[in-house]
This record gives sequence, structure tokens and C-alpha cells, in this order.
Amino acid sequence: MNPKIIRKLLDGVQKGSTSIDSAMEQLSTLPFADIGGAVIDHHRALRTGFPEVVLGEGKTAEQIVAIVLELAKKQNNVLVTRVDPEKAARVLPEVSGLAHLESAKSLVLKQEEIAPQGRGTIAIVTAGTSDIPVAEEACLVAELAGNRVTRMFDVGVAGIHRLFHRLEELRQAKVIVVVAGMEGALASVIGGLVSSPVIAVPTSIGYGSAFGGLTALLGMLNSCAAGVTVVNIDNGFGAGYAASLINRE
Amino acid sequence: MNPKIIRKLLDGVQKGSTSIDSAMEQLSTLPFADIGGAVIDHHRALRTGFPEVVLGEGKTAEQIVAIVLELAKKQNNVLVTRVDPEKAARVLPEVSGLAHLESAKSLVLKQEEIAPQGRGTIAIVTAGTSDIPVAEEACLVAELAGNRVTRMFDVGVAGIHRLFHRLEELRQAKVIVVVAGMEGALASVIGGLVSSPVIAVPTSIGYGSAFGGLTALLGMLNSCAAGVTVVNIDNGFGAGYAASLINRE
Amino acid sequence: MNPKIIRKLLDGVQKGSTSIDSAMEQLSTLPFADIGGAVIDHHRALRTGFPEVVLGEGKTAEQIVAIVLELAKKQNNVLVTRVDPEKAARVLPEVSGLAHLESAKSLVLKQEEIAPQGRGTIAIVTAGTSDIPVAEEACLVAELAGNRVTRMFDVGVAGIHRLFHRLEELRQAKVIVVVAGMEGALASVIGGLVSSPVIAVPTSIGYGSAFGGLTALLGMLNSCAAGVTVVNIDNGFGAGYAASLINRE
Amino acid sequence: MNPKIIRKLLDGVQKGSTSIDSAMEQLSTLPFADIGGAVIDHHRALRTGFPEVVLGEGKTAEQIVAIVLELAKKQNNVLVTRVDPEKAARVLPEVSGLAHLESAKSLVLKQEEIAPQGRGTIAIVTAGTSDIPVAEEACLVAELAGNRVTRMFDVGVAGIHRLFHRLEELRQAKVIVVVAGMEGALASVIGGLVSSPVIAVPTSIGYGSAFGGLTALLGMLNSCAAGVTVVNIDNGFGAGYAASLINRE
Amino acid sequence: MNPKIIRKLLDGVQKGSTSIDSAMEQLSTLPFADIGGAVIDHHRALRTGFPEVVLGEGKTAEQIVAIVLELAKKQNNVLVTRVDPEKAARVLPEVSGLAHLESAKSLVLKQEEIAPQGRGTIAIVTAGTSDIPVAEEACLVAELAGNRVTRMFDVGVAGIHRLFHRLEELRQAKVIVVVAGMEGALASVIGGLVSSPVIAVPTSIGYGSAFGGLTALLGMLNSCAAGVTVVNIDNGFGAGYAASLINRE
Amino acid sequence: MNPKIIRKLLDGVQKGSTSIDSAMEQLSTLPFADIGGAVIDHHRALRTGFPEVVLGEGKTAEQIVAIVLELAKKQNNVLVTRVDPEKAARVLPEVSGLAHLESAKSLVLKQEEIAPQGRGTIAIVTAGTSDIPVAEEACLVAELAGNRVTRMFDVGVAGIHRLFHRLEELRQAKVIVVVAGMEGALASVIGGLVSSPVIAVPTSIGYGSAFGGLTALLGMLNSCAAGVTVVNIDNGFGAGYAASLINRE
Amino acid sequence: MNPKIIRKLLDGVQKGSTSIDSAMEQLSTLPFADIGGAVIDHHRALRTGFPEVVLGEGKTAEQIVAIVLELAKKQNNVLVTRVDPEKAARVLPEVSGLAHLESAKSLVLKQEEIAPQGRGTIAIVTAGTSDIPVAEEACLVAELAGNRVTRMFDVGVAGIHRLFHRLEELRQAKVIVVVAGMEGALASVIGGLVSSPVIAVPTSIGYGSAFGGLTALLGMLNSCAAGVTVVNIDNGFGAGYAASLINRE
Amino acid sequence: MNPKIIRKLLDGVQKGSTSIDSAMEQLSTLPFADIGGAVIDHHRALRTGFPEVVLGEGKTAEQIVAIVLELAKKQNNVLVTRVDPEKAARVLPEVSGLAHLESAKSLVLKQEEIAPQGRGTIAIVTAGTSDIPVAEEACLVAELAGNRVTRMFDVGVAGIHRLFHRLEELRQAKVIVVVAGMEGALASVIGGLVSSPVIAVPTSIGYGSAFGGLTALLGMLNSCAAGVTVVNIDNGFGAGYAASLINRE
Repeated sequence: MNPKIIRKLLDGVQKGSTSIDSAMEQLSTLPFADIGGAVIDHHRALRTGFPEVVLGEGKTAEQIVAIVLELAKKQNNVLVTRVDPEKAARVLPEVSGLAHLESAKSLVLKQEEIAPQGRGTIAIVTAGTSDIPVAEEACLVAELAGNRVTRMFDVGVAGIHRLFHRLEELRQAKVIVVVAGMEGALASVIGGLVSSPVIAVPTSIGYGSAFGGLTALLGMLNSCAAGVTVVNIDNGFGAGYAASLINRE
Repeated sequence: MNPKIIRKLLDGVQKGSTSIDSAMEQLSTLPFADIGGAVIDHHRALRTGFPEVVLGEGKTAEQIVAIVLELAKKQNNVLVTRVDPEKAARVLPEVSGLAHLESAKSLVLKQEEIAPQGRGTIAIVTAGTSDIPVAEEACLVAELAGNRVTRMFDVGVAGIHRLFHRLEELRQAKVIVVVAGMEGALASVIGGLVSSPVIAVPTSIGYGSAFGGLTALLGMLNSCAAGVTVVNIDNGFGAGYAASLINRE
Repeated sequence: MNPKIIRKLLDGVQKGSTSIDSAMEQLSTLPFADIGGAVIDHHRALRTGFPEVVLGEGKTAEQIVAIVLELAKKQNNVLVTRVDPEKAARVLPEVSGLAHLESAKSLVLKQEEIAPQGRGTIAIVTAGTSDIPVAEEACLVAELAGNRVTRMFDVGVAGIHRLFHRLEELRQAKVIVVVAGMEGALASVIGGLVSSPVIAVPTSIGYGSAFGGLTALLGMLNSCAAGVTVVNIDNGFGAGYAASLINRE
Repeated sequence: MNPKIIRKLLDGVQKGSTSIDSAMEQLSTLPFADIGGAVIDHHRALRTGFPEVVLGEGKTAEQIVAIVLELAKKQNNVLVTRVDPEKAARVLPEVSGLAHLESAKSLVLKQEEIAPQGRGTIAIVTAGTSDIPVAEEACLVAELAGNRVTRMFDVGVAGIHRLFHRLEELRQAKVIVVVAGMEGALASVIGGLVSSPVIAVPTSIGYGSAFGGLTALLGMLNSCAAGVTVVNIDNGFGAGYAASLINRE
Repeated sequence: MNPKIIRKLLDGVQKGSTSIDSAMEQLSTLPFADIGGAVIDHHRALRTGFPEVVLGEGKTAEQIVAIVLELAKKQNNVLVTRVDPEKAARVLPEVSGLAHLESAKSLVLKQEEIAPQGRGTIAIVTAGTSDIPVAEEACLVAELAGNRVTRMFDVGVAGIHRLFHRLEELRQAKVIVVVAGMEGALASVIGGLVSSPVIAVPTSIGYGSAFGGLTALLGMLNSCAAGVTVVNIDNGFGAGYAASLINRE
Repeated sequence: MNPKIIRKLLDGVQKGSTSIDSAMEQLSTLPFADIGGAVIDHHRALRTGFPEVVLGEGKTAEQIVAIVLELAKKQNNVLVTRVDPEKAARVLPEVSGLAHLESAKSLVLKQEEIAPQGRGTIAIVTAGTSDIPVAEEACLVAELAGNRVTRMFDVGVAGIHRLFHRLEELRQAKVIVVVAGMEGALASVIGGLVSSPVIAVPTSIGYGSAFGGLTALLGMLNSCAAGVTVVNIDNGFGAGYAASLINRE
Repeated sequence: MNPKIIRKLLDGVQKGSTSIDSAMEQLSTLPFADIGGAVIDHHRALRTGFPEVVLGEGKTAEQIVAIVLELAKKQNNVLVTRVDPEKAARVLPEVSGLAHLESAKSLVLKQEEIAPQGRGTIAIVTAGTSDIPVAEEACLVAELAGNRVTRMFDVGVAGIHRLFHRLEELRQAKVIVVVAGMEGALASVIGGLVSSPVIAVPTSIGYGSAFGGLTALLGMLNSCAAGVTVVNIDNGFGAGYAASLINRE
Repeated sequence: MNPKIIRKLLDGVQKGSTSIDSAMEQLSTLPFADIGGAVIDHHRALRTGFPEVVLGEGKTAEQIVAIVLELAKKQNNVLVTRVDPEKAARVLPEVSGLAHLESAKSLVLKQEEIAPQGRGTIAIVTAGTSDIPVAEEACLVAELAGNRVTRMFDVGVAGIHRLFHRLEELRQAKVIVVVAGMEGALASVIGGLVSSPVIAVPTSIGYGSAFGGLTALLGMLNSCAAGVTVVNIDNGFGAGYAASLINRE
């Protein structure tokens, strides 16, 4: 419809039945969506290589199946995050080719070859073992976007020598994602040791006054080390996504 | 610049030097702002009659003067809210025609006749005397937008007979703005007594666990009376503005 | 009892055994409830056309059945909100004519024809698909109150072109209800694009620092667009109800 | 043991083997518990007539049985509050004479005749039907302590005429307990209408920004009506207990 | 106006021009305020002996003067609370007979003899010396209402022997007001030692995580001692008022 | 690898092929981990006698089994805290020698003789019976670290004589751990009565505005008694650990 | 008075005019304070060597002068904390011998020789330079109580090498006080590196979501390093006091 | 000292008086700081080009002068952030060459030529005019680090066409910093329109439930647009710093 209206208007101009002034006035009062909408959406082309992402939490198995099947038509890769095992079990048989990555609590449908990308490696670091599912979600996004990922798990500050043993490797990464719960001090310590941008992911690991990740979140936002930015609690996906954008050439 | 580009493009179409297909392609990839922006801004025309509004808080006297002088050029009415007496005193001599409405902590520049508007009256009610400045801000916006306003001040639930003495008057209003601090119970009581939409404005009146208006805000959001909607703490302006929109024909 | 007392008093006046002064004194000291109560309740007549509403949450299936059967006697329409599927299944067989609207998590008993009402349409908009149940609750109330409702679902700001494609339709609504979780930015964007009153409904969609809808609630209360008022988290009912009051002639 | 030590000391004084100065020094350095403890506990005698109370929440059925059997030995009445139906079902068969008051989510063992007490009646009022279990807990404590209790349930401010129909009855009470969730406005309204002390009990009824009763709690603490005091969220027991103390002669 | 309408109606009945049925119908549909309002206000008569109270905070000196002069006309005693020294100095010369009670940060105008009242004494206790102004506000209200007051200041739990030295005196009070900041533990300790009702007043004394009295407030609401009720932070007035109501015969 | 690099460097120095200046430069630019890491870890030797500790919460039974089996190889004692009964039942059969301490919700594997240690006893005190599991966790850690522990359970301030009966015993302890929920006042009372360091452990016991232990936590942090330090809500382990460090010679 | 009563009672026993049974009965019903109070206060003797401490904040200069003069009579050392420079200037001339320690925002009156005490040194560490006043308050208390104190200031984790340069010195301390604002990560890092008890003091240093020290407080309470206990925000005094108790022999 | 120890050790190896095995053992047990510290600090070399940064807030003018003079010795550029005008006026005359950038509330000492750096431009965007000082702080850091910066101020969502007019320019940036107060919706809108990493800076602009920037902070953390990371409230410095790291080659 939209192109038709514009074509008709241009036809009028070409044929002389519509003056330029009149055409300009009509164009400026055209409903926005007819022109602007398409333009706005152009930028998505720049994101080629990223998977389509579905937040599994808060959706039923049926909804997830429907969405994945729809997205699958475009032959993109599809990532479904935050899927608990039961839901995964109900979704898997319904979508052929879908894989369950338990460690990342995610489902992945790979339909497209992933082209290697990125200026360097992305290091994804956790303070403890309980932070790993969130970190794996970040790894998954980064890897689906073509990045090389270095995993460094369970190197929290309670035993800081574990971190120091891998310091050089850490320093070689182009971007670092730090995943930590409780007080989240690891983000500050790493931020003080490296010169790459650090994305901090607070996790809901902890109890009592950890307040479901709020304490780690606040700690990371107030990091005394410059260069640390923060995403939402348990948002491995967001961190992996932002790290991929940063690592782009 | 934008009109020039489009005119040039239409010129080409008119002259035959640009094919319609090429013109359509160019239009669809034009930077958004050249076309879309203007369109988006069209709706503001629908708001005719509203004053231009400047939030005085957080701006210096110098900044306010500059902004008011700029806005004054369009011959609109201008309202500056949340101006303390000292700041008002520094701004007033710089803008001719500017008036200081102390009760509403506002400055007003009337340049345009205000046309009477609205389906009915707007009742603006306060629980106590300390809530009046916020209420007056609401009154001011509503009146500048052409509405008839009924003031009912100091009719809080600690002496509920004061409210009941004016119940019929209240029920005749088309929209009701309830301004209250402390626990904000007046919004629920009025919401339960009338059949007009009620806009509740929590105020920062109170101390201790009133938490600067948070308690009133939460109380109003959880009103057991249906039909009550809420604006930010002390946001008389927002309430008066929304009431004016509701009262429109 | 109350009518008896008053009748007796009037009898005395008629018969001359009670002076007018004495009658007036007696009337003014009568227990409030005998006279005032009935008067206060009069305003409910103004709300004709609204369904009777029961909050299903926090009530047992048995309690809901009892209340619906009681309300059904008046031949009104009855709406029960926030009913999970299990409870719905236990209530449905007990009340003949009761329908389960799963998308709105509600039960409806239609006994009365719904007369078309309202000055225009009510647009009910959601940011995502997970916000739909709350939006459907709003739609249901608005429709049961006789309003025409336009649904625009899943047009959140992460893909803002989706919203812009329907901008004109949105601008034609008399009232707009915006339902959004996470950061709730859609309310501000729409508030800045339209000239109708906007009722924002924060939802509990999100995780981590979404804090069960608190973040969306705070965001909406602090909207930089004037004309936005807010209801409680997930309160689709309240928004639909207020929108209906606003849309009244 | 303690009495033995003191007796031995007094024996010494009597026999002359211990000087008064030495006895005084020994007394003043005696471990506190030997003397002070008993004294401190004396005041409990003043509370005669109150049942022994056990908080059922957070205790296993086994623990409750053990505690009740122990307390039962003193032939007091025993009240167990906050017991869910399953736990109640496991406890009941183990203690003979124990009764389950479902409406108050409590267990009661009556072993002692309850002597009527109190200067007047205690009115216990709720805003809605969902507040009743908390109110019944308050009623139960007050009745077990010998008070006459007037119940006024479901008289919230959304339909304020319901309250006004029973205003005189309310005013005759010596103490009033107001139980309300959501915004808790009923406490302020009643506080403004009566001259008796009002104890407000916020309940966890509500959703979203009701925050589990916090909103009602804050509202009640900031009541614009003087004479209102507040207890913890859902603490029917505490309110009934305090009301009983106030009603004492 | 209201009396006229009713008189006219009664006239009609007396003269026979209005039937009793018609009169009853007219009475029941009379605007509420004409009858109900007066009735509602009747209860205030029951509060004789209480001073008129003005919250000084948030009012200008000019406003306070105006209100006090107005209230003074009724020959009641007038109490203005929360007045800082500067404001007091500006108000005092304007109202003859007004006294400044610095320890209670209050102004008092005594025009009426205070009749001794109450079933017993009211003990007003503070944890520290910084809590005294709040306590003195409570004392002032209680004394203006005719009660005998016992002051026990600076007996907090850090040196619990200070409390125990006055335990008997404390136990003889009919009502106890406990004023404490920081963690507010004194309320629990006293609540466990006495059999009178305890009104706890959290104060804003403390720093850091005392959060302006929030910590004391929460502590007192969660007191493990039954019989403790709570008022707003620093609300000495409210505590003194409630204590006076409780002490009434 | 690291030792090889250093050995090669020293070889060069020994052989004269590497100058001392060059060796120093190389050493100072060696990757940190090669030298520093080991050094940092040295301090753990000072902690001999403490068990290895695993936080059971947030780990699956399988993960716990794997970790315990790994740790068991070093012949240390192993403690797993915060294990609910179901998880315990799944872990126990998989690790020979593992014991389930239900009262402390913990699993213990004793492989090493525990040498008695410490300057004195550690008193571990609770306000109520529901606080006992947290206290037992503290006891367990302290005992596994070789300390003598005195248990004083259920001595809260609601019946303060219970505490006073054991005051001398309490005063003889070298360190005191106070475990309390609700308002946590016991920490202040004990802090005011003893001259040993007091570690306060808030528990999540309570309801409503106890906010899962936050109220007790805040109360303890604001204790008016000097010498009280605080750990996280329900962190019996942390308190027992810190008490053990303090009790060391 | 109390001794007189007891002496009289013992006299009776000695003379035979009072039987032992009667004396025992009288003793057990004596007002608590007569005996218990003194006993309770006994433990203060164990605290010899500690200064008398006055919290200056929230007290007027006049009040501080009065309290210090009173305390000075006992010839103890007196410490006044949290005194701003203006207040200090007003207090100093009034008390001879009083010294102003600006770095600790404290006043000190030394009247008594301080005997060296303690099992080892107390290390007092800060993350930044802005944390120093709080740390100096801790140093002051510890030194007035006779401890040797090692200061390590400005060694925060943003430049962690500063800490590592002094690691050995840190490890030799018997107790460590860590003072840090912002995210407070230093407490966790140090807690993971040492085997002494660590007392963490959050400071109000920071802005925005540092929330006046709340973020540091929460971070420290959730430290992943065992053995860390926490005091209130900016409570240098409390930390120094607790450290002194821990360092006692 | 440290170099001396190592030199001595190497001397021994060279001379043959120390065996290689012995040297290795000594090296591995050397106090950490002697070797590790220097190594850790090496990474700072990678940050060449960044200015030295001092947080002015919370420091006195004297302290700032001292620090700047000290840092100036290294011939680096020095940036002092968060300096109010009065403090600036006191610092400026003391440091020659120091410039006051009022718009950024900062002081700058330029001693070193700034080499152009970075893969592209950094766009720094604000929602309103009041957000500009925070944005200018970000610009300053980015420019001092050699980046090209594009400023786009006052393009908030209340008038979204302002943003769309500059969309192409925005899309060409390599990194985008979005500075917004109130509800912070601009970050989500931009995040949905671009494919560069977005760093969101909440500001404390707003009132009432804006809670000093908390609302904007939460909104940004919960952005429905992927690729958005967040820094502390008003932390322009941190955003500019992180953007610079991201823009590095």
C-alpha cells in the first residue's frame, strides 16, 4: 500500500498533474509508517550474524515452539534463553534440529554457518561455580555471533591466586565479561588489573542480604575501577551481546 | 536542507531525469529525519491551547530567562514550574510581562488569550493546607489550558465531614485531581464516592516513614477504589495536564 | 428501623405533637447511618453499565463461586479477574453461563446486554507478548463497559518501527492504555507522540532488577512525557476501568 | 541451688559466723540469675488470663505438638497461631482436646474457664473479606483473654456507606482494631471518626506495589488521624493482645 | 441553607401539603452534606480536654500565627509541634500568651484549665538523651490532656541496669511510651518486662544504616514482646495522644 | 612451565650468559602467576585445622557429591552447609563416611582428628527455638575448628530472665555469637552486658516487616552496645568461622 | 538506700527478729534494682582501660561540654566522636586539656596513662584517602585502649599492587579493620588473603547508587571470604572498639 | 629494597654461592610485594594516553591542590571531576596552567599533547539540558584520551523527532553514550535503533520517585534493547572512560 501511494504521487509529478509543491506537502504529511518505519528498521541489517533471540522465561512451551518455528523460516540461527529443563523437554521434540545446552539453560537452532568475527577474544570469567549457567549464556551468544571465547570459571577473590594464575590470558582478551554473585568484588579486581573494557554481570547467587543479586549489582555499579559497565542481574545474554558488539571490527 | 533534497528529487521526476523507480528507492533510503521527523512532530498541533512548560527546578535563573525569552518568540503562553522565591526574584526583572504565582511556585507569561475549553469542570482537591502549592500548580496548568477549575482545599479524611459537605460539588466535576501527602487516603475515599476519573497526586508532605511522598504514592497506587490513576510525587503539573487532556471534547 | 424512626418523627410533626424545631434537632442528631449511608451509595447508580468485579486472587474457588452466585442475582454482568487455570476449572462447573477468558485470566458472566458507549475508541497497547494477559484484562473491562477497543500488541521500543507503523491508528484513540514491563519505556514514547490521555500499566515481566514490576512502575511515574498517569503493577483491570470513565460522554 | 546459697549465707548471719558486711558483699556479687531472674519474672503473674501463645509458622508439626503438650501441663489455655491446614491436620490427632479454628488459622486448647474481663467491647474491623483470617486471629486472642468482641467485616472505604451504617456501634467500642491491606486507608478514616484508641493491622492482601503489606503498613504509620498505632503486617495476634491490655481495668 | 430545606420540608408535613411518604423519600435523597456531615462531626465532642494541635513543620511562621489566632478564638488550649527555634522566635511575639517549650520543640497557648484525667500514670521512657525532644512532645500532649506523666530518660539497653533501677515505677504506669532510635531494642525489653500496653516511638537518632529511624521503626514493629504498638518515626505527638486515649476512663 | 623458565634464567646467570641486570629485568616482567600466585596462596597454611567448606545451597546433589569426593582426597574434614533434607538424602549414599547433622542442615565428613584449640570457650546464643539451625551451623564450624562451644538457646528478650539465669556463663566466654531474628534485640542486650566481642547473626525468622531478616540485620548493625559486629542473614557458618579466628591463640 | 534495706534485713536475721524463711521471701521479692542492678553493672569493670565515649553527632556544643565535664570527674580518658570543626571550636575553650584530632573528627581528653595492651597489632586499612577520617576514629579508639595500631591507607583494589606491597605486614596483624566506601571490595580481597579476623567498616564515600554507604555495607555482609564481620556505615568507633576487644589477652 | 634482595640472590647464583635449587625456593617464597606488585602494575602502561583522574567530590580544595601538584610532576594530563564552582575558585590560583571547564564541573591540567586515537567517533547524547554537565564530563574524558566526540544534547523521547533528525549521525558512531534522568527511556530507544554498543548513564535529574537517579538506573538496566550496559548514576567519567576503551584499536 505504502509504495503504491508514493508511486501514485510520483506518477502525478512525472505527468505534471501534481505540482512539486503539492507533492512535497503530501509527502510531509504522509502517515509516518509508510516511509519512516522501513528506514528505522534498516539498521538491523548491520547486525547480521547475530542469532534471533527469544527470552524463554515467562513463555509457555507452546509459545516458544510457535515463535521458534516462525523465526526458523528465515533460516537464521535461533537462541532461546532461560529455559528450565522441564520446559526444554516439552519444546525439543517439537522443533527438529533444536539443541538443548543445559549448562546455559538455553535452546539453540543452528541453521546458518557462523562466520568467525571479532577483533580479538572475549574472556568470560566467573567468581564461583554457581555463576556458570549465566556465564555459559554469555558464551553462547558470543559464540553464535562468531567470536572466540575464553572461559575462566571459579576464579573469585576468596582465593585470588586462582585469578592471578591466568592474568596474562585475561589481559590478552579484547573484552572481558565478569560474572559474579554475592558481593561481586571480582569485577573491581579485574577492572583494576586490565586495560580492556569489562562488562560486569551480577548474579543472583547468595542468600540473605544478597537480595537476589541486588548487592552484586550495586557493588559493580560502584566499582572503584574505571572502565566497568554493568548489565541486569543474571543477564548473561545481554553481556554476551554487548561484548560481541564491542569486539566487532 | 531536507526540503531541498526532496524538491531536487521531485524536480528530477518532473523533468524525466529521474525514473519513478529510482525516486522511490531514494525516498525509502533517505535519512529518516528528512521526512519522518516532521511527521512525528505533527501531533503537537493537536495540543493547541496548552502553554509551553519549563521545569524550573535544576535550572539556573540564567537558563530559565534564556529559555523563556526563546519560547516567548512564538507568542505562546509560557509556564515555568517549581521556581523557588529567590530564583523567581532573579528571573522576573529579565522578562517583561512575566508574573510570579507564589502559591503555585510558578512563573507565567500570558501572551495569548485563553479560549474556554473542556467538557466540564476539573475539581482539584487537597487533604491539607500544606498540599496547596502542588494543587495550585495543577490548577494553573488546567486554567492555562482553558478549563474551569473548582478548588476544594483542606478536606482530608482526619475530618471527613469537611469532604462530605462538598460532595455534590465534587460529583459534578468531569475530572478530579486529589492532592494528598502522609498516607494519601483521601484518593481512595473520593475514588469510592464519585464516578469521574480521579488523578491522584502524592505529595512530599509528612515526615519519618512518609519517605518524601513514597508512602502516599504507594497508597494511591494500591487504592481499593477503581478509577484512580497516579502521577509522580508533587507532580501537580502532570496531574493538571492529564486532567486537561481528559476534559477535552 | 431507620425508616421507622423517621416516620415516627414525621408522624409527630404531622400530628402537631412534635414541633418543627424539635424535629430538626432530632434529625440532626440521628445516627449517621440511618440517613447518610443510603445517600452516599447513590452515586453508584451513575456507574450503570459497568460489570460487578471480583478480585479472584487470594480467594478460594469456593469463595468465588459464592460471591458470583450472589452477584448474579442482580442480573448484572460479573467479571472475576486474576484467576489461574486450576481455580477457573474448579469454579466453572459451579456457575452456569460463566465463561473462562484464558488470555485475560478472567471469568465472565454475561447476563445483561452491553450498550455501546464512549466518546471514541480505547487503544490498548503492549510492549511485548508477555504483557498480553494484563492487557486483555484491561480490554475485557473496557468492552464489558461498552467501549470499542483497539488492540496493538508487541510494539515495544526495541523495534520501534512496529509502533510507528500503527501511529495514526494510535492517534485516533480517545484514551490509550500502555502495558509494558522491564523498563516500561513505551509509555514515554507513546506519551510523546499522542495528544490523548495515556494510562500506563507496569507489568511484572522481567527479571533481576525489574523487581517484579517496580522498575517499570517507577519509569512510568517519571515519564518525561506529560499526560501519562499510572496504575498499580499488573493492574489491567484498573487501567481498563479508568479508561472507560475517561471515555464516557 | 540459688535458694540454698542464700539460705546458707543467711544461716551464717543468723549464727554469727558471717558478718553483715561480708554478707552484703557476697549478695552484691552473687550471680545475677540467682536473685534477679526470679524477680524479673514476677510481672508475668499480672498477665493471668492470657493464653500461652505459640507462633506456629516456622515450626514443624512435631515441634508444635511437643510445645503444646509441655504448655498443657500447666493447665493454661494454649493458642497456636499461623498454622496452615496441612500442619493443623498433623498436629490435631496428637493433642487431645485441641481445636482447629480454620478462620483464624489457629489451634486452641481450652483447659481453663475464661473469666469475662475488660472495660468495654473491642471492635475488630476489616476492609475486605480477604483480611478476615488476620482479624479472626485478633478476635481469638481477645476472646481467650476474656474480652467481648464486636466483628465488623468488609466495610472498606471503596464503599464507605457500609462503614457508616455501623458507625454508632463502632463508637461504642473501648478499643478498635482495624485490619486492612492494599493502601490501608480504613485506619485513617476510622481514626478520624472515633475517640477510642485504634490499633491498625496492615495485611499482605494486594499485589504489585502492595509489596506484601508494606504499603498498608506505611500508610497506617502515616495516618493523618491521631490516636492510631500500628503492629506488624498480618499480626492479628499482636493487635488482639495489645487491645486486651488496653481494655483491662 | 441546609436547615432551611429541612424546615421547609417539615413545614409541608406539618401543614399537610407534604405527605409523610413523600417527605421520607425527599429526606433519603437529600445531599449528604446537609445532614450527614454534622452528625459525623459529633464525635469530636467526646474528645473534650484535648488541645487543638497544629503541625508546625512545613508551615511558615505567618501561617502558624494565622492558624493559632484562629484556633485561639474558641478558648481552647493550642499546641504547635515541630517548631524550630528560629520559627518559634518569629511566631512568639505575634500571639500573646504563647509559650515556647524548647525541650519539646513546641509552642503552647494555655487558655483553659486542664482537668486531671486518666486511670493512672503514663510513663514516658527514652533510650538516650538525644531522644528527649521527641519524648517531651509526647509528655506535653499527655499533660495538656490532663494525664500524670512519669519521665524516665536515658535508660537504654547499652546500660540495662539503669532501666532495672526504675522497673517498679515503670510497672506501675497504666500506659508506657518508649522512645528510642538506633536499633530501638528498648521497646522489646520493656515490652517483655511489663503488663501495660507499650507504645513505641522510633526516633531518627543514629547514622548510616539507621536510615533516619527506619531501622528503629522496623525493629519495634517486629518486637518479640507482645503488646507493643508503634507510631511513625519521631511522632511523639501521636504517641502521647494515643496514650492519653488509652488512659481515659 | 613456570619453574622451567626461572630455572633457565638462573642457569644463564650461573653460567654467566645472562647478566644480573638482564635477569632482574626479566624477572620483573615475568607473568605474575608464575611467581606471585604461589606466594599468595601461602597464607592458607595458617588456617590449618579448619574444615573445607562447601555451600550446599544452589548446588545440585550431583555437584555436591563431586566436590566432596574431590576435597576428600586431601584427607581434610569437609563441611557442607545449607543442605535441605531431600538433597542430603541424595548425597549421603554417594560418599562413604559422610554424616548428616540435621539440626545444622549440614553434612560432615570427618577424616582428620580435631585438635582442641582456642583461648577459651565460644558461647553461641539464640533468641528463639527457630533460630537454632543457624546457631547449630555456627557451632559445627567452631567445633570442627577445635573450639569448645557453649550452647544457650531460646533466651530472647521477651523473657529476659532466661538470659539472666545464664549471665555468668555467658560472661566467661571468650567470644559470643548471638543468633536472633525478628528485631534482633538480643544482640544489643548481650552486647551491653559482657566485655567479650559479640558476633551477631540476624536470622530470617519472622514475617511481614521482618523482611526475611533485614530488620534483624539493620537492628544489629545499629546496636547501641559497642563491640558488636555482624554477619549476613542466616550466616551461621560465617559467624562460627569468625569466632574461631578470634578465639585463636 | 538499697544497701540500707538489705542491711536492715540482715540485721534482723542476725538479731533473730527475722526468720531465715522470711528473709528469703523478702529478698526474692525485693525490687530488682536494689540488688540486680549493681550486679549487672559489674562487668564494666572488665572494660578498664577503655575511654568513656560520647557520640558528638546530634548533640549541641553545650550538651557535649556538660557531658565531658561530668565524665571528666572520674579521671577517665574521654573520647567525643563525630564532631564537626565548628562544634569542636565551640567546645574546646570550655574544657581544659581537651584536644581536637581533626583527622578523626574527634575530641580527646587524656587524664589517665594508657597502659599498653593486646596480643598483637591491629592493622587499620583504607581503600581510599576519603575513608581516612573513619579509619582515624578507629585508630583513636584502639590506641586509647592501649593497642598498637598499624595504618595502611589508600590501598584499594583499583590499584591492587599497593595492597600487595604491604601484604606481609598485614598478615602479621592480630586483627584487621578494613575501611572502604563505594563497592567495598577491599574487605573481600583482604579477607581472602589473611588468617586474622577482619572487621569491615563501610563508609559513605561514593555517590549515586553508593546510597550513602549502603552498597559498601551490603557488599561487605556478602563477602565471599569467610571471617569478615561488619559494623555500621562510617562506624570507625565501633570497629576500633570491637578490634580492641578481640585483641585482648 | 626489593631489587636489592633479588640482586643479592642473583649475585649468589652468579658467584656459585647459591645453588639454582636454593634460589628457586627463595624466589617462590619471597614476600609477594617484592616481585608481584611491580608486575601487577605493568598493565597501566597499556593505558597510555589516558589522563590521571581525581574525584573532586569529598575532597577539600587543599587536598585537591596537593594531589594535582603531585600528579603534575609526571607531566601527565590531569583531570579533576565533580568540582563545584566555589571549590574550583579556591583550587585554580594554586596550580598554574589548570583550567576550569564549568560545563563539565571539572578542572583540567594539560601538559601532554593528546594523540588522536580510536576506531571511530564516540557519540554522547543527552535526553535533556539538565543532563549536560554529566555528558560534558564524559566528553572531557573521551577527548583527553584522544577520541573524536559527537555531542547530541536535548534529544529525549518526549519529542522523539529531535532524535530522529540526527539518527544517521548517531548510527555512524563506534560507541554511544546515552545520558538521561527521569525514566531514562532514551537509552532503550537508541539501543533499539543502532548497532553500536551503548553505554547508558542515569542522571539524578528528576524529583519525587526519580529517587536521585535510581529510577533511571533501574530503567536502563532493564532495557528491552540488547547491547546496553550501564554505569553509576551521574558517572559521566566512567562512561567516557569505558567508551574510550571500547573505541581503542
